[in-house]
Amino acid sequence: MEDVIMEWTREKRYLPYNQWSAEKLLDLQAKAANSPAQMHYHLHPISGLVNDPNGFSYFNGEYHLFYQSYPFGAVHGLKSWWHFKSSDLVHWENLGLAVKPDCKADSHGAYSGSAMQIGDRLFLMYTGNHRDENWIRTPYQIGAWMDKNGNVSDKHVLFEKPANITEHFRDPQIIKKNGHYYAILGAQDQAEKHGHIDVWKSDNLTDWHELGFLHFTDQTMGYMIECPNIVNVDGKAVAIFCPQGLDQQVANYRNIYPNMYVIADQADFEKTQLINPGKLHNLDEGFDVYASQAFNAPDGKAYVISWVGLPDTTYPTDNEEWANCLSQVKELSIKDGKLLQQPVSSIKSLRGQEEQTNSQLIKEKTNGQYELAMTIKAGQNGKLYLAASDDLSQNVTLSFDTAKGSLTLDRSHNAQSVSEKYGQTRSILLKQDADLKLDIFVDHSLIEVFVNDGEHVLTGRFFNDPDKQKICFDHKIDYTGQFWKMKTILFKVKAIKNGSKTHRCS
Amino acid sequence: MEDVIMEWTREKRYLPYNQWSAEKLLDLQAKAANSPAQMHYHLHPISGLVNDPNGFSYFNGEYHLFYQSYPFGAVHGLKSWWHFKSSDLVHWENLGLAVKPDCKADSHGAYSGSAMQIGDRLFLMYTGNHRDENWIRTPYQIGAWMDKNGNVSDKHVLFEKPANITEHFRDPQIIKKNGHYYAILGAQDQAEKHGHIDVWKSDNLTDWHELGFLHFTDQTMGYMIECPNIVNVDGKAVAIFCPQGLDQQVANYRNIYPNMYVIADQADFEKTQLINPGKLHNLDEGFDVYASQAFNAPDGKAYVISWVGLPDTTYPTDNEEWANCLSQVKELSIKDGKLLQQPVSSIKSLRGQEEQTNSQLIKEKTNGQYELAMTIKAGQNGKLYLAASDDLSQNVTLSFDTAKGSLTLDRSHNAQSVSEKYGQTRSILLKQDADLKLDIFVDHSLIEVFVNDGEHVLTGRFFNDPDKQKICFDHKIDYTGQFWKMKTILFKVKAIKNGSKTHRCS
Repeated sequence: MEDVIMEWTREKRYLPYNQWSAEKLLDLQAKAANSPAQMHYHLHPISGLVNDPNGFSYFNGEYHLFYQSYPFGAVHGLKSWWHFKSSDLVHWENLGLAVKPDCKADSHGAYSGSAMQIGDRLFLMYTGNHRDENWIRTPYQIGAWMDKNGNVSDKHVLFEKPANITEHFRDPQIIKKNGHYYAILGAQDQAEKHGHIDVWKSDNLTDWHELGFLHFTDQTMGYMIECPNIVNVDGKAVAIFCPQGLDQQVANYRNIYPNMYVIADQADFEKTQLINPGKLHNLDEGFDVYASQAFNAPDGKAYVISWVGLPDTTYPTDNEEWANCLSQVKELSIKDGKLLQQPVSSIKSLRGQEEQTNSQLIKEKTNGQYELAMTIKAGQNGKLYLAASDDLSQNVTLSFDTAKGSLTLDRSHNAQSVSEKYGQTRSILLKQDADLKLDIFVDHSLIEVFVNDGEHVLTGRFFNDPDKQKICFDHKIDYTGQFWKMKTILFKVKAIKNGSKTHRCS
Repeated sequence: MEDVIMEWTREKRYLPYNQWSAEKLLDLQAKAANSPAQMHYHLHPISGLVNDPNGFSYFNGEYHLFYQSYPFGAVHGLKSWWHFKSSDLVHWENLGLAVKPDCKADSHGAYSGSAMQIGDRLFLMYTGNHRDENWIRTPYQIGAWMDKNGNVSDKHVLFEKPANITEHFRDPQIIKKNGHYYAILGAQDQAEKHGHIDVWKSDNLTDWHELGFLHFTDQTMGYMIECPNIVNVDGKAVAIFCPQGLDQQVANYRNIYPNMYVIADQADFEKTQLINPGKLHNLDEGFDVYASQAFNAPDGKAYVISWVGLPDTTYPTDNEEWANCLSQVKELSIKDGKLLQQPVSSIKSLRGQEEQTNSQLIKEKTNGQYELAMTIKAGQNGKLYLAASDDLSQNVTLSFDTAKGSLTLDRSHNAQSVSEKYGQTRSILLKQDADLKLDIFVDHSLIEVFVNDGEHVLTGRFFNDPDKQKICFDHKIDYTGQFWKMKTILFKVKAIKNGSKTHRCS
């Protein structure tokens, strides 16, 4: 892998797309398609690297989603938005590259942002990353319009950073409330270099002014907040964000950077505060979730989708020149003051024949692509091995104690390890002497574990030999379970008018 | 469209893939994906132009298929093989570019050929197109091996053309019979410049010798035969081939070039003859079928798939920079001495909810992607309008007379026409005073009409405005019908070992 990484000079990472060869791209696409680690029912790279979900929205009667794409390798190079759409949040249509870094304001990357239908077009609001000849960065907040035919046009700079904010000023989420438009952005202040959520306002999408930093805690939110989102969930305001460098005394986390959430009674943007905010919690208690993006659909439902990948982190598939994927879409709700994340109901449309499985050996072999739902009766402890070799030496392990109340996801016995310095296990505490309900989704090198109807989610990548597919308990366990092979998702092609996907901005 | 064509100099068409930009390819892929004319349940271009199906075979427990691909536009430029696989002949996995023109013998195109599993690898046999600095063409017959991971290696020249054959010597089909390997190729003789099927033999796939031209008719087979195939169908030998320039007195056809078949008792390759051959028939009686490729699966079944497109023909989508598609796979059988072509049974897995439809107005609107099965009672005549505008002025028409016994496919009222000089209608004669059974598959700009359980097939492209979707009869007709929306096919990603798709040959 080393050699691959060594090659990536700054010049190469920011080489314009028209200076890469089509032959290279064709080879990269074939590599990504043929990789044994590739996801089959989650959004994954067509080639190269994907990171943040962007522009998650409802437009023209369908759900739209973009992701940050660097098509030419497993590095964070010159970024674009790649476009997908869906009628059910499970089956996605691949509509290809949609927003390219093709004007001065986004010359070094069409970075993350959000989208909202306004009139009969989709308004895209994102951060343009510009660097000058001395590599000094200037972030521009850009607006653009996408029509029903997927044509992106009229890119224009909405506003630049205020003097009190450093170059770290990005990831706008546009929100409409009481007839006004608001945007919340991740920001680092000049004075103390702390992380903030900065609130802006506009009544016409053209003239924007800053309202100031959002107050929702007295604690320091590390040195930078990335990817802030605020959504309405069952009458509450839930803020989801990534406070980089957060003190682990403020909120405990194990990953290199956390993806946190806070539940408040409501968000008062005019007063730049969350009303009665709770404390910080990890959105996901596994290994690899970051930059999650949430939005409220017209029916009021709140959905979130996560990048399964972390900044400043390498993965074994880097040597195949592709990296990362997105999580499945999770529906948000609040129960007893707790945030629940659950699979959308249409995920069931991917299930094959239901297979009952109540023995110690669950599957001798699988195709690496399945859902396993089980209820483990109270008062037991043991290990569930997944993606395991016959002698169980290679595996992904879920260790549970339904007496004391704990669950641990362990990837220390993978064939190839990831981020060892941040630990190879993730543990959560559960109610004592209670049944444990697990809904486990495995997609080749991805595992998503939904615990007790979404009270906890543990998401992680794992890298075992593709033929290691055994699923079993370490000893006889009292449980009930169902197993489904999962279908590969469809990348439908939507019939829309032909036209260039982007227009250079003037 | 003119301007697009004008651009295509020889230099541009044969530009190496590494001299095209990735940005251009990304734009072409998005264009192809977003075209309103794009097929959704037939194999179609990921970008650019597709032509002949290649290497249709059964390997490692699955069906494999390649097509001729020129990824950079709607012209016949530098060709490669693009790879798909399937477990049911309906849902295909897109495995990307597999055989590139990357050695001297195929420097100007990895042209058409066939494939056969030998041992645990797939043997590919195809024509390498080489041109020298004076643009003099030399055809090389090439062998290569593909492993289970999709890696193509060990390209080597098997044999060159004999002195009595011109530069037109291509499209080998490899056949195993009585423990020997045979290859049949399309050829033009030096002396008379007539079309032939040339037979070669090998016992080790390395040493090949010519047996001579296959005798199956006393008539002249035009100036060149392309894409010859011989398959066993219900105990008969069926030869499928494309005799370019065939005298229409020998066999009537209306397209620029015909795709014909002959049924014989058997093929005697040693004696280079078909035993008791019948006369020539059009394989398809529509507008756009050519270069069909057939093979016998291990279970003995004979399958054929066709290029839906014609040489020296332009289509309206050329100005979107993509062109053509493949037909659905058709299963061959013989009944009362007649060749039948029927959809494979698994095509039913694409059907949505069955909708009964027995009125004059069948559908006010569709999504352009459906199957319509009907039986029109004897003794009537009328018109069935498909893809029609509300006033019926724009349409595709099936005119039928179940009294006199005739059926006509008419695309003269399309928004954009194709190959007008070869006529805008195709007609067939049927049994008089008999019920007419139609199984009609429409996929946006493609129609396939199976008549009376596959006694006739009429295939064609049509180009109406995407919103023209009405289906109705011109007056009240006594018939029974079922309608199904068809699902978009899955391009599954197969999990196989990573590796470069091709190796340069030595």
